[in-house]
Amino acid sequence: MTTHTPGHTRLRVTRAGIDTYQQPVVYMHRDCEVCRSEGFAAMTRVRLDVGTRTLVATLNVVVDDRVGLGEVALSEVAWALLDPMTGALAWVRHAEPAASAGALRAKVFGARLDDAQYLALVQDVMESRLSDLELAAFVTTSAGDRLDGAETTALTRAMISVGQRLDWGKGPVLDKHCVGGLPGNRTTPIVVAIVAALGYRIPKTSSRAITSPAGTADTMEVMAPVALDLAAMRRVVELEGGCIVWGGNVRLSPADDILIRIQRPLDFDSDGQLVASVLSKKVAAGSTHVLIDMPVGPTAKVRSDAAADSLGSRLAHTAGALGLQLSIHRSNGAQPVGRGIGPALEAHDVLKVLRNAADAPADLRDRALALSAGLLDMAPGSSAGTGLQRARSVLDSGAALAKFLAICDAQGGFREPPRAAFTADVPAPASGRIAEIDNRRLAKLAKLAGAPTSPTAGLETGLRIGDTVERGQPLLTLHAESPGELAYALDHAAALQPFVLAEAP
Amino acid sequence: MTTHTPGHTRLRVTRAGIDTYQQPVVYMHRDCEVCRSEGFAAMTRVRLDVGTRTLVATLNVVVDDRVGLGEVALSEVAWALLDPMTGALAWVRHAEPAASAGALRAKVFGARLDDAQYLALVQDVMESRLSDLELAAFVTTSAGDRLDGAETTALTRAMISVGQRLDWGKGPVLDKHCVGGLPGNRTTPIVVAIVAALGYRIPKTSSRAITSPAGTADTMEVMAPVALDLAAMRRVVELEGGCIVWGGNVRLSPADDILIRIQRPLDFDSDGQLVASVLSKKVAAGSTHVLIDMPVGPTAKVRSDAAADSLGSRLAHTAGALGLQLSIHRSNGAQPVGRGIGPALEAHDVLKVLRNAADAPADLRDRALALSAGLLDMAPGSSAGTGLQRARSVLDSGAALAKFLAICDAQGGFREPPRAAFTADVPAPASGRIAEIDNRRLAKLAKLAGAPTSPTAGLETGLRIGDTVERGQPLLTLHAESPGELAYALDHAAALQPFVLAEAP
Repeated sequence: MTTHTPGHTRLRVTRAGIDTYQQPVVYMHRDCEVCRSEGFAAMTRVRLDVGTRTLVATLNVVVDDRVGLGEVALSEVAWALLDPMTGALAWVRHAEPAASAGALRAKVFGARLDDAQYLALVQDVMESRLSDLELAAFVTTSAGDRLDGAETTALTRAMISVGQRLDWGKGPVLDKHCVGGLPGNRTTPIVVAIVAALGYRIPKTSSRAITSPAGTADTMEVMAPVALDLAAMRRVVELEGGCIVWGGNVRLSPADDILIRIQRPLDFDSDGQLVASVLSKKVAAGSTHVLIDMPVGPTAKVRSDAAADSLGSRLAHTAGALGLQLSIHRSNGAQPVGRGIGPALEAHDVLKVLRNAADAPADLRDRALALSAGLLDMAPGSSAGTGLQRARSVLDSGAALAKFLAICDAQGGFREPPRAAFTADVPAPASGRIAEIDNRRLAKLAKLAGAPTSPTAGLETGLRIGDTVERGQPLLTLHAESPGELAYALDHAAALQPFVLAEAP
Repeated sequence: MTTHTPGHTRLRVTRAGIDTYQQPVVYMHRDCEVCRSEGFAAMTRVRLDVGTRTLVATLNVVVDDRVGLGEVALSEVAWALLDPMTGALAWVRHAEPAASAGALRAKVFGARLDDAQYLALVQDVMESRLSDLELAAFVTTSAGDRLDGAETTALTRAMISVGQRLDWGKGPVLDKHCVGGLPGNRTTPIVVAIVAALGYRIPKTSSRAITSPAGTADTMEVMAPVALDLAAMRRVVELEGGCIVWGGNVRLSPADDILIRIQRPLDFDSDGQLVASVLSKKVAAGSTHVLIDMPVGPTAKVRSDAAADSLGSRLAHTAGALGLQLSIHRSNGAQPVGRGIGPALEAHDVLKVLRNAADAPADLRDRALALSAGLLDMAPGSSAGTGLQRARSVLDSGAALAKFLAICDAQGGFREPPRAAFTADVPAPASGRIAEIDNRRLAKLAKLAGAPTSPTAGLETGLRIGDTVERGQPLLTLHAESPGELAYALDHAAALQPFVLAEAP
């Protein structure tokens, strides 16, 4: 290729003021000379050069005078990526295909890719060189078990290599991760408090809700700031041994953050991409010992023992290849945990457990203790089987609560979670015994009530499989921040009834 | 579901003046009440209700005052689909997942889909209920041979059922289609003229260039108007027996037109989607007898005899299921046809053949005659083997030329194709014998010179495999409409050298 630049003119770079999330979009006028001479049309992939900076973006064509003939207007993310100076001029031309487009095509047609090909793919993801359509093709062609063990490890390594990586010096660094799908299963703040209270390092990063009514970061945020950057996170861990921060600001696996934008709306589970997502973040966080909480149930994320076996062996294979100690805690995923579903409602449950309150949900306490025990028993130098007793002692003594409050203070200050202004009970449509609980419907109802956008919204229920209910008795209580949201959730409560009732024995 | 409408207010519908091609996009202000109460973010899939009309679109969030707090602004295609009255108000809420999302997911995970599932998918494609990401997943999961024969037929039937279908009454309706990939292989205008001159009906719709330097519609357009609607097309065929019009305005397989938007940038060949695309248009056009021109060569669309066998049997299977007579004409696809590559340059070749000019390209004439013969021999009542002689007689007599000019007149008037103002020769870098010709590089060079956007741009070459050239002798002549475009193509001519030279014997 030569350095000759097509077109006869550069365009002035302006800001369109349009948020296209992580997809860079640029706007040019239909009649602009560059559009015409280059043969651009809506959705053309174009390359902008401003000085030594380059951006690849998707073109939208403006047909009125919002964008001038001599301008190229940038969406918010395009502006952030190119970061032009005031009055900057850009050459605009057709983008060359991404270097990894050939590897992507090969994968779509059934080939296995190697380490170098996954690295090229992930680098192009990072630099926005692959279009959203190409990212969707990558997600689609990775669905189910279409990445084998070696490919999963290659993708994980590639994701680690394009991000930052924390180094905590000598000694074990513990971590836990839940595969998800169980509403109310908010053990992380309790586990971090227990493990850190016992003197271990546990620098935990968590996500916000993707498709659920609350992520750990959402729940934690009603009690303390979570949007810490990497330097602030390091200070908290050096001070208190543990943290619970939002992963979005520390960007330990930034390629994963970009892929999530495509994975979320498509919602095609991929064992390979799940493993790469989880383990790339753990390795980047400097973790050495990781416990995976894997609830298994018909409406959880992992639906069967066979699926758990397959995912578990894939996790173990890649962890082994990366030198990570990994243990899997398989648990019953048939029904929710705790009483609240939604950021603040789950925070109340967490605090009751930490405070040893009389009405603390026993299932949440038991799960948090079991996970803490599993993690403690993995740590080098600990006597096997002593973890549960050690975890219980710091929880019962109040040492875990004190550690949790200290971590909150280090993150910016503890605050008591608020409560929603509007609540309404949903009554049982008939009498009977609860035979099944649909976790997905519970999550959906909590979201309709406003969770996680409205932090105090969601629902509460103490009912479990085997309980009997009388017709008209409350099955659950909806919480909302406005009467409109409450009415909206109530309208759908009958159609989304999460409790399957059998005749009482 | 109930009829309760979330949110507390409707938004005024305005026009954003932004062309997002066929992807409906709506723009709302970040601080608008509906965005906040519904929890919308950039890229959320939203549903607009205006009276009884509904539109599903992708949200872009505006962060400055280009869109008011009480407004929802629509991209051009969103505006056309919703077609609101002045001052119309819209309810905006989260879109429900498309009805066919479950079928798409099943296909991604390896299931075979049935007729009803393909119909649901195609209906959702038509109504923009599937996002671009979902369409990309559909294209990806159909790549190569991932649709079997029954699925291909089901997809074809579904595509036919959502569009218009022409009925020409009794008697055969002939048609031809080229699988493509061979620059300059512009036989259609000649074949239509010959076949119509012999009294057959041949209502031909053609595409504009998708990734090539010229589509048949682009070439035809330099000689006559092609953007006819269905009624105008019918009048031309009733008057002259044949037509050569652009398919984009008659919308015989509109779902295919939408899918092309996703297929083109991804460029994952799918035998199943190719067959559905071609045959749905033929059935919708009312064709009864179809000849498929299938050039086979290392740089053509179909690269090997094995690929041709596979695609051919799939075409035959689906044609049989749809009651269509189909014949496949396999030809040598190792090198270009005619001398010109680019809309007007190919039109000159076509006219020379029709005019029996002394310098008419013999290969284009021979191919057009062979295809016409194949089609004539398929027609009911014709004596097998007489087609070639009949075709040659109307071409040699000038009857085909007269018919072509009459068709052009009926379409709006014939005009002589223009010539480009700027040309430059590309000299041979060495002496030798031409061992191979790369069709893709030839096409790329013609596009760099401006084809098809600049209709007279492209290139000319009369060289063929086996010819010997001397160092410095012109290999091809570039044609451009501006000195800049000519310089751009010249800059790339060395790197894109399409002739592989061996030592002369």
